[in-house]
Amino acid sequence: MDKIFRLNMTDKSFKVEPVPAAWVPLGGRALTSTIVAEEVTPTCDALGPNNKLVFAPGLLSGTAAANSGRLSAGAKSPLTGGIKESNAGGTVAQKLVRMGIKAIIIEGMPKDNKWYNLHVTKDSIVINEETELLGKGNFAVVEALEAKFDKKIGILTIGQAGEFMMTSANISVKDPDSKIRSHGRGGLGAVMGSKKIKYITVDETGAGAVPVAEPEKFKAAARTFAKALLDHPVSGQGLPTFGTNILVNILNEAGGLPTRNFTYGQCEDHDKFSGETMHDTIVARGGKPKHGCHAGCIIQCSQVYVDKDSKYLTSGFEYETIWGLGANCLVSCLDDIAKADNLMDDIGIDSIEGVVMFAVAMEAGILPWGDGKAVHRLLTEEIAKGTPLGRVLGNGTGSVGRTYGITRCPVVKNQGIPAYDPRSVKGIGITYATSTMGADHTSGYTIATNILNVGGFVDPLKKEGQVELSRNLQIATAAVDSTGMCIFVAFPALDVPECLPALIEMINARFGINLTGDDVIALGKSVLKTERAFNLAAGMNNAHDRLPEFFSLDPVAPHNAIWDFSDAEIDEFWNF
Amino acid sequence: MDKIFRLNMTDKSFKVEPVPAAWVPLGGRALTSTIVAEEVTPTCDALGPNNKLVFAPGLLSGTAAANSGRLSAGAKSPLTGGIKESNAGGTVAQKLVRMGIKAIIIEGMPKDNKWYNLHVTKDSIVINEETELLGKGNFAVVEALEAKFDKKIGILTIGQAGEFMMTSANISVKDPDSKIRSHGRGGLGAVMGSKKIKYITVDETGAGAVPVAEPEKFKAAARTFAKALLDHPVSGQGLPTFGTNILVNILNEAGGLPTRNFTYGQCEDHDKFSGETMHDTIVARGGKPKHGCHAGCIIQCSQVYVDKDSKYLTSGFEYETIWGLGANCLVSCLDDIAKADNLMDDIGIDSIEGVVMFAVAMEAGILPWGDGKAVHRLLTEEIAKGTPLGRVLGNGTGSVGRTYGITRCPVVKNQGIPAYDPRSVKGIGITYATSTMGADHTSGYTIATNILNVGGFVDPLKKEGQVELSRNLQIATAAVDSTGMCIFVAFPALDVPECLPALIEMINARFGINLTGDDVIALGKSVLKTERAFNLAAGMNNAHDRLPEFFSLDPVAPHNAIWDFSDAEIDEFWNF
Repeated sequence: MDKIFRLNMTDKSFKVEPVPAAWVPLGGRALTSTIVAEEVTPTCDALGPNNKLVFAPGLLSGTAAANSGRLSAGAKSPLTGGIKESNAGGTVAQKLVRMGIKAIIIEGMPKDNKWYNLHVTKDSIVINEETELLGKGNFAVVEALEAKFDKKIGILTIGQAGEFMMTSANISVKDPDSKIRSHGRGGLGAVMGSKKIKYITVDETGAGAVPVAEPEKFKAAARTFAKALLDHPVSGQGLPTFGTNILVNILNEAGGLPTRNFTYGQCEDHDKFSGETMHDTIVARGGKPKHGCHAGCIIQCSQVYVDKDSKYLTSGFEYETIWGLGANCLVSCLDDIAKADNLMDDIGIDSIEGVVMFAVAMEAGILPWGDGKAVHRLLTEEIAKGTPLGRVLGNGTGSVGRTYGITRCPVVKNQGIPAYDPRSVKGIGITYATSTMGADHTSGYTIATNILNVGGFVDPLKKEGQVELSRNLQIATAAVDSTGMCIFVAFPALDVPECLPALIEMINARFGINLTGDDVIALGKSVLKTERAFNLAAGMNNAHDRLPEFFSLDPVAPHNAIWDFSDAEIDEFWNF
Repeated sequence: MDKIFRLNMTDKSFKVEPVPAAWVPLGGRALTSTIVAEEVTPTCDALGPNNKLVFAPGLLSGTAAANSGRLSAGAKSPLTGGIKESNAGGTVAQKLVRMGIKAIIIEGMPKDNKWYNLHVTKDSIVINEETELLGKGNFAVVEALEAKFDKKIGILTIGQAGEFMMTSANISVKDPDSKIRSHGRGGLGAVMGSKKIKYITVDETGAGAVPVAEPEKFKAAARTFAKALLDHPVSGQGLPTFGTNILVNILNEAGGLPTRNFTYGQCEDHDKFSGETMHDTIVARGGKPKHGCHAGCIIQCSQVYVDKDSKYLTSGFEYETIWGLGANCLVSCLDDIAKADNLMDDIGIDSIEGVVMFAVAMEAGILPWGDGKAVHRLLTEEIAKGTPLGRVLGNGTGSVGRTYGITRCPVVKNQGIPAYDPRSVKGIGITYATSTMGADHTSGYTIATNILNVGGFVDPLKKEGQVELSRNLQIATAAVDSTGMCIFVAFPALDVPECLPALIEMINARFGINLTGDDVIALGKSVLKTERAFNLAAGMNNAHDRLPEFFSLDPVAPHNAIWDFSDAEIDEFWNF
């Protein structure tokens, strides 16, 4: 029987609870968002004792389903002031499922001024005072804990940014190679820091196999599903070859590659940091062009990027990070970008928030445009040390914009806008504006249909069809995020007819239930509405579903496109 | 005929416009809030080209009515994100009335990167490029401009804080002694800075007398009104003798004097900085215990505070500033407080926002508790220089709280909570929560009735009657703020039966109209509703009418009072 682990950091009490009936059919985002919505007062201080930090594996996590190993983390976000769900690969989700832990809920806040670590076993969570690893980066934490336990230990950790409760702080999770993946967005690392938890170790000793109600049916569906992933040109070829960074040249061509803090839509130097260049560099230097973020991943969009001497520089080197420093900050040297990526992983800040923030910092004159070494210095000497400037930077894009009075400040709900210009790719603008998460491309990735012709085509420069496109994708994504699946399964799911039925079949076979496609859509809608209700109760309204004013005032080359949706057109999104 | 001066900083165009019929009966806050609500897009960037900065004298400004010389400034606030009105004494309001200028509207934003000054005469506004006084404090600006023009020149100026667009930046206005008063709250100095205006000179050469429709009726009413002010114990004796600082001992006694960043309600050292001590010190050192902020003030609650060598230290030395450093930051030395007050005036930051902010900065460990010299150093070396730390501090209480993850952060709508603990003086908590301005004691000063027994008595520790009290006072205040009257006329207006009728009679005699008491109440209601509608359209809702969570979690000594209003009870405020 699955169970809920509930830990209170105020009185250090721990309880094992049965899974309430209403939570049984939920997993991943559906479960974390439901728990946060049910148990957290929306108006509470996100860094205070009334916020809760929730971890939950997806419905299919721990099974043999391809790409299902993602862990969801949820809380009220100190960055957006709304609800937050952020999921990541790594090794913890699958361990929790094998241990029968449906979710971990961490509540309260120590009244002493001490730091703690948590040790999760199949029966309990033990709280220990922590002193040794305070002030250390994530890589040092992983190294020390693997030495203390063994290579198999699961780890969730925060870097210095989380200790300082910076609102761009992420929660890192150890991946199969002892490197890390990130619950990146929304400052969940600050929430973990506010609860004075430096790290959580997950020891699955004694855990059992994951029960599957109908094993044969599951196997058949899993095969169909995996084949769809491998057959689709994006998930089967593009992503494994070039990683997500395949997008630099594509977005540059489309005029949607935000450049110099969203001033232009194309970047002259795009070839210097494109996916093609990155792939060739990795191959020439003897890195790994393919790499999975969790056991069972068959897309392998990650990679191990090495320096000239074939020494590890970074992994999980994503398009958004590379775009952000490469085009948006004009740091065209891929090695400089890789080093910055590695530093952000180590310090524990969301690399999307980080790169969007650095461009605004350049706009503010804090560092010169294109200066990669200055980026490294600010990361190690200011952010990692929690200096006043480091705190301003570590609190993200909006923090820098507000502190320096910069109006070209690309945020929605105070979260930095990712790597696609909403003026020239209008569907993603609707997603940025309306997502319950703040600006978040993954919550409704219209790039698929606006740019990659996946799931049809909606002209990125026209307003027609964008709201519907974003709505459909956000609903589907909320459902997919609940399965523990990587969001990239959406590519085949949109194009390969047998893919989505196989995904649903796997869920049905796992639990012995009979979900239909409609049920899955209903789940997605319900997740969005639950999240939206939380945000409204937290003080948001339609006026928060807006892009910054400059997108409506300043046209972006080469299309001279502006953001031209009326308020009423945007608000139509919630009409479902 | 009165006229509107409209200046566009984008294209440098200037227009003289007739006063629209709907604006004719309005002045002060009613006029600035109406103009902002009609002309500013509520969701615009407060530091962007679509915000407007509006100045308007009150309905009675420029006449012989006692205490009527206040100038209203309005805009969308970069601090609160809502509408903002802030009024101050000084010499400009009366000049504008004599020049027939009903309001000045400044819109747009220069596209070049240059700074400007404005020179207002009765016929026009001339825009000049400014280089010489950039980076200077307000006192140097006043000195230089009086040397360039003469002692009679009216001046509105921003200090370094406004140039840096810090959201605690105020707009200073020269007083009759060539010192300054402040449009303090809400960051209007940042708005002036965003429009690249360092200062505005007002030259009333050629201006005429202020027309009064029924002079004899006016004189009689003015006499009755002045007598009421002089007869009331608060406005006639308490304030002239001890200044607003009379409140330190009173609030300490009531257990409502926020101490050590709102941790306690009483301060052991209160005698060191009380009004009584201040008065004796001023007298002993040869300062001025009484002083008016504008010509025609008969309350004279200001003073000139001098140092041991009888050298000027500060004037307009208010209770809120003294409480904030004295009790809330534990800086008990009155000379240190006076120097900090003078520095804040010079740099141009709101001294209320400043002192509330410094306590949160102490909580964050940025400076030690009680260290007045550190306060001076942070003001001159960080804020005035716009260092990263200076920007964090200069952006106010919420900025420091967010940047350092401090949950004991006393703000409403991001504006610092002034000098009365809302747990032990519950009426003022309703005002803080519901005011359209963010936390603002002056917008509905329930201290009068909760503590001073003016206008009756409502027990400060009980919930009963507080919402109604705050509502009535906020409505009355919105009306008074429209007359150009100092808010302290409310004391006699609440207690002396002939005071309010005399005030209305003066307005009627001035314009030859027939306002009734009901009309005045209707005006106050209309102002509040106009402002509230702007805030709602800007993205606020009931969830923004809340005090910070810690007031509900942490009881305050000596009454062990907590903030215990339900959301529904607070929201009842808007039921009128």
